[in-house]
Amino acid sequence: MTEIAFQPIGRRIAVQPGTTLLEAAQDAGVALSAVCGGVGVCGDCRVRVLQGRVSRLNDVERDHLTEAEQASGLRLACQTIVEAADAIVVDVPRESLSASQRSQVEGEELPLPVDPPIAVYDLAVTPPSVEDLRGDWERVRGIDPAQWQPTAPVLADLPTIARAHGWRVRMIAHGRRIAAFLPPDTEPLGFAVDVGTTGLAAYLVNLETGATLGIAGATNPQIAYGEDVMARLTFAARDRAGARRLQTAIVDGLNDLLHEVCRQGGVPPARVVEAVAVGNTAMHHLLLGLPTEQLGTAPYVPAVCAAMLTPARDLGLRLAPGALLYLPPNVAGFVGADHVAMLLATETAEQPGVTLALDIGTNTEISINAHGQLWSCSTASGPAFEGAHIRDGMRAADGAIERVIWQDGALHWLTINHAPPVGLCGSGILDAVAMLRAGGVISEMGAMSRNHPSVQGENHNLWYEIVPARRTGHGRAVGLSRADINEVQLAKAAIRAGIKLLTERAGLSESEIDRVIVSGAFGNYIDLENAIAIGMFPALPLERFRQVGNAAGIGAKRLLINAHERERAAALVARLRYIELTNHPDFTDRFSQAVKLTPDPWD
Amino acid sequence: MTEIAFQPIGRRIAVQPGTTLLEAAQDAGVALSAVCGGVGVCGDCRVRVLQGRVSRLNDVERDHLTEAEQASGLRLACQTIVEAADAIVVDVPRESLSASQRSQVEGEELPLPVDPPIAVYDLAVTPPSVEDLRGDWERVRGIDPAQWQPTAPVLADLPTIARAHGWRVRMIAHGRRIAAFLPPDTEPLGFAVDVGTTGLAAYLVNLETGATLGIAGATNPQIAYGEDVMARLTFAARDRAGARRLQTAIVDGLNDLLHEVCRQGGVPPARVVEAVAVGNTAMHHLLLGLPTEQLGTAPYVPAVCAAMLTPARDLGLRLAPGALLYLPPNVAGFVGADHVAMLLATETAEQPGVTLALDIGTNTEISINAHGQLWSCSTASGPAFEGAHIRDGMRAADGAIERVIWQDGALHWLTINHAPPVGLCGSGILDAVAMLRAGGVISEMGAMSRNHPSVQGENHNLWYEIVPARRTGHGRAVGLSRADINEVQLAKAAIRAGIKLLTERAGLSESEIDRVIVSGAFGNYIDLENAIAIGMFPALPLERFRQVGNAAGIGAKRLLINAHERERAAALVARLRYIELTNHPDFTDRFSQAVKLTPDPWD
Repeated sequence: MTEIAFQPIGRRIAVQPGTTLLEAAQDAGVALSAVCGGVGVCGDCRVRVLQGRVSRLNDVERDHLTEAEQASGLRLACQTIVEAADAIVVDVPRESLSASQRSQVEGEELPLPVDPPIAVYDLAVTPPSVEDLRGDWERVRGIDPAQWQPTAPVLADLPTIARAHGWRVRMIAHGRRIAAFLPPDTEPLGFAVDVGTTGLAAYLVNLETGATLGIAGATNPQIAYGEDVMARLTFAARDRAGARRLQTAIVDGLNDLLHEVCRQGGVPPARVVEAVAVGNTAMHHLLLGLPTEQLGTAPYVPAVCAAMLTPARDLGLRLAPGALLYLPPNVAGFVGADHVAMLLATETAEQPGVTLALDIGTNTEISINAHGQLWSCSTASGPAFEGAHIRDGMRAADGAIERVIWQDGALHWLTINHAPPVGLCGSGILDAVAMLRAGGVISEMGAMSRNHPSVQGENHNLWYEIVPARRTGHGRAVGLSRADINEVQLAKAAIRAGIKLLTERAGLSESEIDRVIVSGAFGNYIDLENAIAIGMFPALPLERFRQVGNAAGIGAKRLLINAHERERAAALVARLRYIELTNHPDFTDRFSQAVKLTPDPWD
Repeated sequence: MTEIAFQPIGRRIAVQPGTTLLEAAQDAGVALSAVCGGVGVCGDCRVRVLQGRVSRLNDVERDHLTEAEQASGLRLACQTIVEAADAIVVDVPRESLSASQRSQVEGEELPLPVDPPIAVYDLAVTPPSVEDLRGDWERVRGIDPAQWQPTAPVLADLPTIARAHGWRVRMIAHGRRIAAFLPPDTEPLGFAVDVGTTGLAAYLVNLETGATLGIAGATNPQIAYGEDVMARLTFAARDRAGARRLQTAIVDGLNDLLHEVCRQGGVPPARVVEAVAVGNTAMHHLLLGLPTEQLGTAPYVPAVCAAMLTPARDLGLRLAPGALLYLPPNVAGFVGADHVAMLLATETAEQPGVTLALDIGTNTEISINAHGQLWSCSTASGPAFEGAHIRDGMRAADGAIERVIWQDGALHWLTINHAPPVGLCGSGILDAVAMLRAGGVISEMGAMSRNHPSVQGENHNLWYEIVPARRTGHGRAVGLSRADINEVQLAKAAIRAGIKLLTERAGLSESEIDRVIVSGAFGNYIDLENAIAIGMFPALPLERFRQVGNAAGIGAKRLLINAHERERAAALVARLRYIELTNHPDFTDRFSQAVKLTPDPWD
């Protein structure tokens, strides 16, 4: 075994020779960026080997690293193989880490009565005596024990609690299933979580009052195995062990969040008697340990669409012994339970007139409610707005440029927490494209003019220098390339084409949309005027837009505290008509029009 | 950490200094005898330290070891503490190991139709297409998926099996709970196990035909934590970790047996869709992870008496993902589900006339069916017949004297597998007492005559040398002491007093008993004439006795293949009247009479 130390994080792990540094980093819990899943395509996983023997630089690395970078000792972790038993020390540059993004957990909450799916039974237990030698369970009063069937792990708490609390005990049940025995007068708690591809948001809720007792966010630890859904499906498809590692990673992440929200609330996790998780179909399947091969290959069907209600402990979630985990129904392979939760939270299906609801991500889910008729689609908008496939793209972390304006003939910028700039996050990328267009540096088709002094490079390699090397946090210039602009065009065209086709399917024009609900972290931060300017959204009056934050997480909370929301979710999915865009006859046409950087590409 | 190697077994473990050698042996899975649970009372855990530094011989050890034994390097593992980091080598003499006892798994089987609690559904799955993008589960035909609620681990097998088998799949359900998805035409299997305090017996059964596909026995691995029930309850009561270790030990043992019977049957354990376990109340609780403190302290009540039906995976049993484990009801703290299974297997409750049924062990459970009226009791017969608390007692392993006869004025003996004698197992102990009585060496009250040339020692330390040191396997003489005879008297008196009080409760005399059913490994091997001669059993004609072998295990199999047996179990327990002997007004009187070594102590 070879010991590897990752610096400056200070994580250590022992691995077999033959292991790549990326595999070692993943096992050590180092969140090294690996957008491509570790196949040498993205070139993100840059590290320096400070000590120890590893494989020589190979051609893949020479393709991704400049001569200067090679000279500085940079390597691609996915290509670098541990060769000998000598200890290895690896330096992980800041930009190679999937920076802990600003967790977006808050969102708009609409009022909802508390009516949880669990029931509380306050019971007494007759003390045993030589005249009454029945089991503890048989001596319970307040219910008829013969009518209930506790599982062993649930029943295990009864004897101890009853003896410690004067032969009183509280039983929590979901229907006929006993979730837990709790000490008397203990309020049952619930755990709601939004499992995003990149971020997790968790909420601890008092199921008697509906009060939120704790909120926490974190990066999805699966990110070490690929940044987008497809990279993770590829990793999971390699073998059963891969899928299990992804499941273990997300379950560990959720247990950490559970621990954190319970710490905030000052309560033990064993009091959490019910949980709700929402996520896209891939996250849903990976959390539940369902196979994903059929999700990743045509015709891209889920293992299950129906709502799931499954014992949380089976998955490794450390809640009360009989706690159930509810996941709302999936609509299709690429419209998941998180979109359903978002539609519930925003009451999209209950709105009068025409409402459009979007969840922007690598896949953007879009639904329309046109006078009570509901359609949904998913469109492959790509990871550009998450900073991937963008020259200097990054997640929304310290040092990310999140706002860009055009002033005095040049771009000006703001970073998160005013840290020295190291790259552009999604809102900054969108702003930069809109502003370069406004400043006339790029054309409607995205072509870059060479006339501006900040434009550098040649032919296909033109790029606009936003921050010169001397002013950045890592000593490399930050800019936006022609190729980056193209990525943004493809992303926004996918979204706009989806909107267009949904309104057409509803027999409407885009101008008839009464309100646009934009949810999610990226959607919450974007500048709507800029999004309209580049044609990502229809040119509607700004007051018709509502940026609602993490509506999926809020929807999860609603599904936790009110059982009728689960019926609403089932009814909603039954009403939703899914439109598959990949083989839609008009998609290519609408898409190719929508790449234009103009508010109305249909002109 | 200090590395310890146990020889000649070859197990190794690293421990912290301060650990005792017994704790190290237990953690290493070395089945060192420790009848007292490691508190320095039994003196069983003898080892030799061949290399390394450990604590000096203490007073407890000096009490248990002769000068010669001390000189030979013998130590008590429970008293010997690891002191330094140097590697330690420990020799474990054969007699210190809980020898793998003769596994007693076979028993008399009465005919029973196959009508298992699971149902088989042969399903088709509509292949997905661009016109049908529903989830795999929603495309299932043959049932209405909306009426079922698969758990995630169960559902996980559906997509793979359906795709591998031409979109056909077999669903196995217990009531409304789905146990597994199996490939089409795969017969579902069941696993039945008798969890004895000392031995485990396991059966693999085809649930369509009732055929037994595999049988295996093993020592209960919990034996490393104390040989009898009370020692284990003491270990479990120390802390939660102790209870968890006992649970892990038994679950690991059952998984090993599952693996073995599946190997015999040539089938994967994932095809096992239902399981049954029977055991005394303590084994039942330790397997299920239920607290045992209330079982070990007055008034000795179980956590639960009712039958349990609990997910097998929750306990760590590696069966099909949704397989349920059924355990029949317990009668009381010391009359457990194994006795219920035995009564079912022997159809004791259905017999005409008067039937007595016994399960002899550390606690002996006795039931009587007197013309349809049923009473049960448990009597503390102690571990003498398991070889514990007996000078040269041992389990039924190679070298154990299992038969003793009186011939030409002396005892003659036979060992298991004709190995050189090392001690006496239960049937040999019983024979030896009966034969010494027959030969006039001991009196009716158990007093030993000094006149026989084989009687050695003085006063209270008289003992009869059965095998001189030169002829034994370990170089020490094997004999039976006055104290051993006393232990046997206490054991048989407890059993006989229980029989007497049950018949009295039924308003009968012992001679009115029409049949006596003797179950269990010890009961199967004993010489009935000798058992009658010393007054353990009433002096009935031998043809009224039936030695049925492992009836508890056979009962477990019946509860597996026929759902009505579970109703019979519940009905039986409802009919059984439990008589607590510990505070019975006549118990002391009957017991003190029954210590006499005579067929009719009531004269």
